[in-house]
Amino acid sequence: MTEIKALMFDVFGTVVDWRSGVAREAETMLAPKGYAMDWPTFASAWRKLYVPAMADVIQGRRPFVVLDQLHRETLMQVLAERGIADLSEAEIYDLTRAWHRLDPWPDVIDGLTRLKARYALATLSNGNIALIVNMAKRAGLPWDVVLGSEFARAFKPMNEAYDRAARALDLKPAECLMVAAHADDLRAAAGRGYKTAYVHRPMEFGPHHADRGWPADRFDIAVENFSALADRLGA
Amino acid sequence: MTEIKALMFDVFGTVVDWRSGVAREAETMLAPKGYAMDWPTFASAWRKLYVPAMADVIQGRRPFVVLDQLHRETLMQVLAERGIADLSEAEIYDLTRAWHRLDPWPDVIDGLTRLKARYALATLSNGNIALIVNMAKRAGLPWDVVLGSEFARAFKPMNEAYDRAARALDLKPAECLMVAAHADDLRAAAGRGYKTAYVHRPMEFGPHHADRGWPADRFDIAVENFSALADRLGA
Repeated sequence: MTEIKALMFDVFGTVVDWRSGVAREAETMLAPKGYAMDWPTFASAWRKLYVPAMADVIQGRRPFVVLDQLHRETLMQVLAERGIADLSEAEIYDLTRAWHRLDPWPDVIDGLTRLKARYALATLSNGNIALIVNMAKRAGLPWDVVLGSEFARAFKPMNEAYDRAARALDLKPAECLMVAAHADDLRAAAGRGYKTAYVHRPMEFGPHHADRGWPADRFDIAVENFSALADRLGA
Repeated sequence: MTEIKALMFDVFGTVVDWRSGVAREAETMLAPKGYAMDWPTFASAWRKLYVPAMADVIQGRRPFVVLDQLHRETLMQVLAERGIADLSEAEIYDLTRAWHRLDPWPDVIDGLTRLKARYALATLSNGNIALIVNMAKRAGLPWDVVLGSEFARAFKPMNEAYDRAARALDLKPAECLMVAAHADDLRAAAGRGYKTAYVHRPMEFGPHHADRGWPADRFDIAVENFSALADRLGA
């Protein structure tokens, strides 16, 4: 690990708890209008449309668009499926940006603060720049640089997302450590020459999924949280 | 100024004192090899080749390349003009990156720290991402996001450099304040709808230019330094 110079972070699920945050934002807007439902399930339903929404871009059927745009399109689907048709344009815009207002897991600020003294901290998320910047300002996430989909004009797991991030920092891929709670992201990063750190986030998909185990893959590092990651990296 | 949401900073000359820093780095490498010269003049000669080096990209005769690459090419010119031909590849690489190791003017950290609590702080420099990130890590510059030439694939004063930076933050140009010590940069930003803040840096080009006056343009703000900018913006 001595050659690592930059840490590249997945964000949704790895850094922030999207499920609780989106649930809270949806409830805040929709409950006063008389809607009642299980809000975390609403959040999960919205999130479930994320991969298919990206597929058209990844498979070349559609030019690159920012994640805010995909979130808006998938929000319209989730609302329609629930018979919610009375939101104003301003409300749709605001609820789409629920993803800008997510809270980090409790260990994140401690870990990042320690790691920042020793490494460049980059986001390598499929979120767009405004989203990542607004989230960081609100939550106090101390990123050094925002890379990822909007910079690369490519979503993970496309090769360009990883390749262009390393190149932007003038680093070899082996000098970059991809940090993620998702094995598929780490496998793709490893395929481009990155080192890999798995962080276990059992609550990402809620209590019903809390007992899913650790992936069988052998990543370079596998830890419980960001404080443990800082320990492992001597930060 | 109440609608301002993000501050976009020019970097060389506005945030950091490139002339003293490049002079120091050149002297550190070349003096032990027996070269003697006026090092600030060496720095100014290198800097003077920057605008012509960008011109081929700006005028479409050459695809976009990062500033590190232009700095390398112009360094080779400056060295050749002085009969310096004994640097190794590693030394050329290291001296090219003198621009990554520049110190901020004395008011910068105070001003940025105060402004960061209230605004998104973006770099909108012609420097490439690795350069801006390495400089920030070394000097403690608290940027929220690195935009500018490598993100836009366009150098200032090309329209795309300003347009794409505002769009990346999902802001209207009038919500962005361009902060620079150079009237031409501010005029170009104003032409794209930005608000403008001129910062007077009389020592940028050294003591012989220290008495150049303030520009006649009427910018939205004109201040002596970043602490005064924070005062003006209520930060």
